[in-house]
Amino acid sequence: MRDRSAALVVVGNEILSGKIRDSNAYFAACELRKSGVELKRISVIPDDLDAIAEEVSYCARRFDFVITSGGVGPTHDDLTMEGVARAFDRKLITHPELARLIREHMGDRANAAILKMAEVPEGSVLNQADDIRFPTVQIENVYVLPGIPQLFEAKLLGLESRFQADPYFMRTIYTNANESALAEHLNATLESYPRLLLGSYPRLGDSEYRVKLTLESKNQEYLEQAFKHLLDLLPKDTVVKIE
Amino acid sequence: MRDRSAALVVVGNEILSGKIRDSNAYFAACELRKSGVELKRISVIPDDLDAIAEEVSYCARRFDFVITSGGVGPTHDDLTMEGVARAFDRKLITHPELARLIREHMGDRANAAILKMAEVPEGSVLNQADDIRFPTVQIENVYVLPGIPQLFEAKLLGLESRFQADPYFMRTIYTNANESALAEHLNATLESYPRLLLGSYPRLGDSEYRVKLTLESKNQEYLEQAFKHLLDLLPKDTVVKIE
Repeated sequence: MRDRSAALVVVGNEILSGKIRDSNAYFAACELRKSGVELKRISVIPDDLDAIAEEVSYCARRFDFVITSGGVGPTHDDLTMEGVARAFDRKLITHPELARLIREHMGDRANAAILKMAEVPEGSVLNQADDIRFPTVQIENVYVLPGIPQLFEAKLLGLESRFQADPYFMRTIYTNANESALAEHLNATLESYPRLLLGSYPRLGDSEYRVKLTLESKNQEYLEQAFKHLLDLLPKDTVVKIE
Repeated sequence: MRDRSAALVVVGNEILSGKIRDSNAYFAACELRKSGVELKRISVIPDDLDAIAEEVSYCARRFDFVITSGGVGPTHDDLTMEGVARAFDRKLITHPELARLIREHMGDRANAAILKMAEVPEGSVLNQADDIRFPTVQIENVYVLPGIPQLFEAKLLGLESRFQADPYFMRTIYTNANESALAEHLNATLESYPRLLLGSYPRLGDSEYRVKLTLESKNQEYLEQAFKHLLDLLPKDTVVKIE
């Protein structure tokens, strides 16, 4: 069974100061899950070289893939490329192919500021996808994506074939019992099925159910057995819906 | 001038797997900014003891306050208290006052699972606010909050008087110029006003403006001077709106 782990590093003061509500983390979480990849960490850090270098270095050593979001524009606060270069102790160089693409696209408007966007860590790889204008820069296991949601989403989808692992299977039980009443049945199920991914999510103010239970595994048979085990333990009148 | 820094640690597999879209990070980012506190890090980590202990320990050493969100219910995957205890190398004990409150509130339903919610790291402090039912547990500079948004928000607001620093002042310029054309003016402004917090946020598909520039400082006079400096540099016909 092929497992893959990932981390997402969101770079941007605007998220930390509440000026902009990030949507890239949720999009990436959903897409990676669909691909069977286990997202194990999301971090939001400031536009600060040391912070970027430290976090990218930490994640690159621990996870199979690292995706960064933001900090790749032409202005003073766009420091992701330099931070990633520092994480891998590499120089920042102007990539001739990126410079060519920028000149081709921008024509006379290709000033020094915009050509900063052709600067990448030495040894970077360019990943081209059919439906995106600029290739995505990759350094080792780190993929550098822009923060603007439309671009982030298009680029992540363009890289999808890279981020593939065996899929998760999931079952869901909606119940009107309290979490405290469910706890013993959840524990008993985990004793019999220790590798089950079991989540218990209470919801306030929902008239339909009180707690949503999610059961997951990459082994479908194991999942179905665990699902049946838990369902048999739960008092029948507490189960509102199963999926 | 009194500065305060903070970190938010969101604990929960459900966020990382895309089952639930977190709203607590954005709420905390906005509220802390209003209080003048600089949120310097948001991390989302799994329901895993080692991950919680490591991240809480890292943040507690670096920032003035740490707020955690989630992982405090009665079930198997609620591990935040134990993780925080491990971060500070303390034992987990049953807090008599919390146990009393739970028994008072739950009556006969106060089983072993729910009484797990009275377990806190040794030496924890209880923070009571008028409008919340259960006090918020504090260990050193770490405040442990529940993940359910309604409860997280109420508890954070209840703690507001603790999280206070000198306020930020902000000015905003909306412009229809491209970021690359703005870069030189932003750099020139930062040369004259190096302590200015200057953000440049392009927006795709907005008919009103292309880039939103935010200028911030805790020193209002410094801010107004920098604002005037930048405004004088920008071509008049590119400024759509100021705030």
